[in-house]
Amino acid sequence: MSRAAAAGEDLGPAEIQAHLDQLTKPPGSLGRLEQLAARLCLIQQTLSPAAGPRKIVLFAGDHGVVADGVSAWPADVTGLMIRNIATGGAASSALARASHTELAVIDVGSLSPPLQEPVDGYLCAKVREGTRSLAREAALTAGEWRAAWEVGSRQAAQAADDGFRVVAGGEMGIGNTTPASCLAVLLAGLTAGDAVGRGAGSGDRALERKREIVGRAARRARGSLEQDPEGALAAVGGLEIAALAGFYAEAAARRLTVVLDGFIATAAALASERLRPGTARSMIAAHRSDEPGHGACLEALGLEPMLEWRLRLGEGTGALLLMPLLDAAAAMVSGMRTFSDLGIEA
Amino acid sequence: MSRAAAAGEDLGPAEIQAHLDQLTKPPGSLGRLEQLAARLCLIQQTLSPAAGPRKIVLFAGDHGVVADGVSAWPADVTGLMIRNIATGGAASSALARASHTELAVIDVGSLSPPLQEPVDGYLCAKVREGTRSLAREAALTAGEWRAAWEVGSRQAAQAADDGFRVVAGGEMGIGNTTPASCLAVLLAGLTAGDAVGRGAGSGDRALERKREIVGRAARRARGSLEQDPEGALAAVGGLEIAALAGFYAEAAARRLTVVLDGFIATAAALASERLRPGTARSMIAAHRSDEPGHGACLEALGLEPMLEWRLRLGEGTGALLLMPLLDAAAAMVSGMRTFSDLGIEA
Repeated sequence: MSRAAAAGEDLGPAEIQAHLDQLTKPPGSLGRLEQLAARLCLIQQTLSPAAGPRKIVLFAGDHGVVADGVSAWPADVTGLMIRNIATGGAASSALARASHTELAVIDVGSLSPPLQEPVDGYLCAKVREGTRSLAREAALTAGEWRAAWEVGSRQAAQAADDGFRVVAGGEMGIGNTTPASCLAVLLAGLTAGDAVGRGAGSGDRALERKREIVGRAARRARGSLEQDPEGALAAVGGLEIAALAGFYAEAAARRLTVVLDGFIATAAALASERLRPGTARSMIAAHRSDEPGHGACLEALGLEPMLEWRLRLGEGTGALLLMPLLDAAAAMVSGMRTFSDLGIEA
Repeated sequence: MSRAAAAGEDLGPAEIQAHLDQLTKPPGSLGRLEQLAARLCLIQQTLSPAAGPRKIVLFAGDHGVVADGVSAWPADVTGLMIRNIATGGAASSALARASHTELAVIDVGSLSPPLQEPVDGYLCAKVREGTRSLAREAALTAGEWRAAWEVGSRQAAQAADDGFRVVAGGEMGIGNTTPASCLAVLLAGLTAGDAVGRGAGSGDRALERKREIVGRAARRARGSLEQDPEGALAAVGGLEIAALAGFYAEAAARRLTVVLDGFIATAAALASERLRPGTARSMIAAHRSDEPGHGACLEALGLEPMLEWRLRLGEGTGALLLMPLLDAAAAMVSGMRTFSDLGIEA
């Protein structure tokens, strides 16, 4: 905690900007890197922000709605990818290594059997084997949602206890753009048409089917959102989404800096903010993806994305791309001289 | 050199894309990271590209035209910033440390006296003390341009000899958006109105004055561009710009991967490509800056910028921001399993 925060004062945007403007560069000339740096300072309440140590936790789960034809990929790819991530062969594995970010993958509800061999950073903590199909019934009960939330929450608490300062969440779950789209409709005010995209490669028919299913499920859940928000989110949610939401809430409560990933992670962040208002104040949006609903979810959280690289993979990859840019932002804030150091009047 | 290149074969875009598409992710789902990775593979002619070791060389020089009121900053800031960069207090110093990039700063023509104490990575190699004012006469003779070009060329040769695989150039020179704008008019077909921006903070009057000066100087140089391109570029150029152009040409000849920075660096790259056609094939455009002429210069080189972060500092800062994203791109290409490794038909 910084001196200011320790004294009960707030380090505000104006004070942060004043610091950035006295560094040896024309004011504002580092553009969005300055925005990122200012955000980091604001979240951490210090002018010497930390970009690490950092950890990404990926939560995996399967979705009953895949049986209804919303995805281009079969559900057993979730299990194959859990193994691939855990053993270092996935995009997230490669980007975590490249960005010096510790990675863990938690099976919170896939249909696949647990890995038999012990693998560092892998944990099987299944709440149930996949969700029910939200095309026909509530995907999860409120109790199942809470259990998955707790799995995520414990991961964030562990990361804080282990000394990590920056965390990201990510997900793997064939079909999970469908529940994410439902959450975008419920929580960011989108229509099903605007919320639903092609995910990881759906064709035209699957797209139409997804829109119908999302519209119907969201309408069904909307009725109970006010009096039973947990139940309503559970009905259109996913186990990895609930775990992510719990992860974000606890990470924010523990004063970690939270880096968001793509559409599904951001939908989970919306759920987290809905159930634990204020959680979004710890968040940095890594990117805006190609999924059409993503931008609106970020706006609903009041976040501006840093990269627009047309990513649509999930698995924490966008958050991992931002990690070294946090290093740059932190280095700029605390590694530069001021104009007065140089004897120049700014 | 890769196996393919050694055998005289070309590794083409289709072969590279086929490799990226068999990695364990939906094809194209890493968006612009895949573009960056493909570019890296194409330049290096290998499917195991290197993102390092890497070095950035900043060239500094002063500009006679500053006496004509084009800049918000006095010329002696160039010398203060050379010292600031060399001794680790500038934005480029901080970002070089954060991105594990070796940094050197070469005074190729400032008005300030050389640093008296020995400083690692600093070299005084002045061709002359500042240019003449391009508002009134040729800024440099062709001979002076060539001498500065040689300073840059030697730096690239040294980097290659020292085993660096990726290099970037950058610049520091109060007033150097004015010569860069002239080059953008001459080589990218812009009008002076479209080429000239506020640089590092010019006011309205300075902006008008810059436009007049640029238009006049570019018209004067245009007449001799075909029969004496070196002389024409020298007339509107700068010492750090000539050094950068020579640096790029030699780096490309030595098969290094070249990361471009902002407007001035890109104008120098245009000059390099004009005098040594084919140089641009080794280049990656780190970003598109807030300077209005930058995008057109990149288009003239056939390059697509990776970041749009509204940078307008120069000093290699945009190139340095891209460096860790090259790590990510290289890690993606060579650190992921394929679908057939997982037993999935892609």
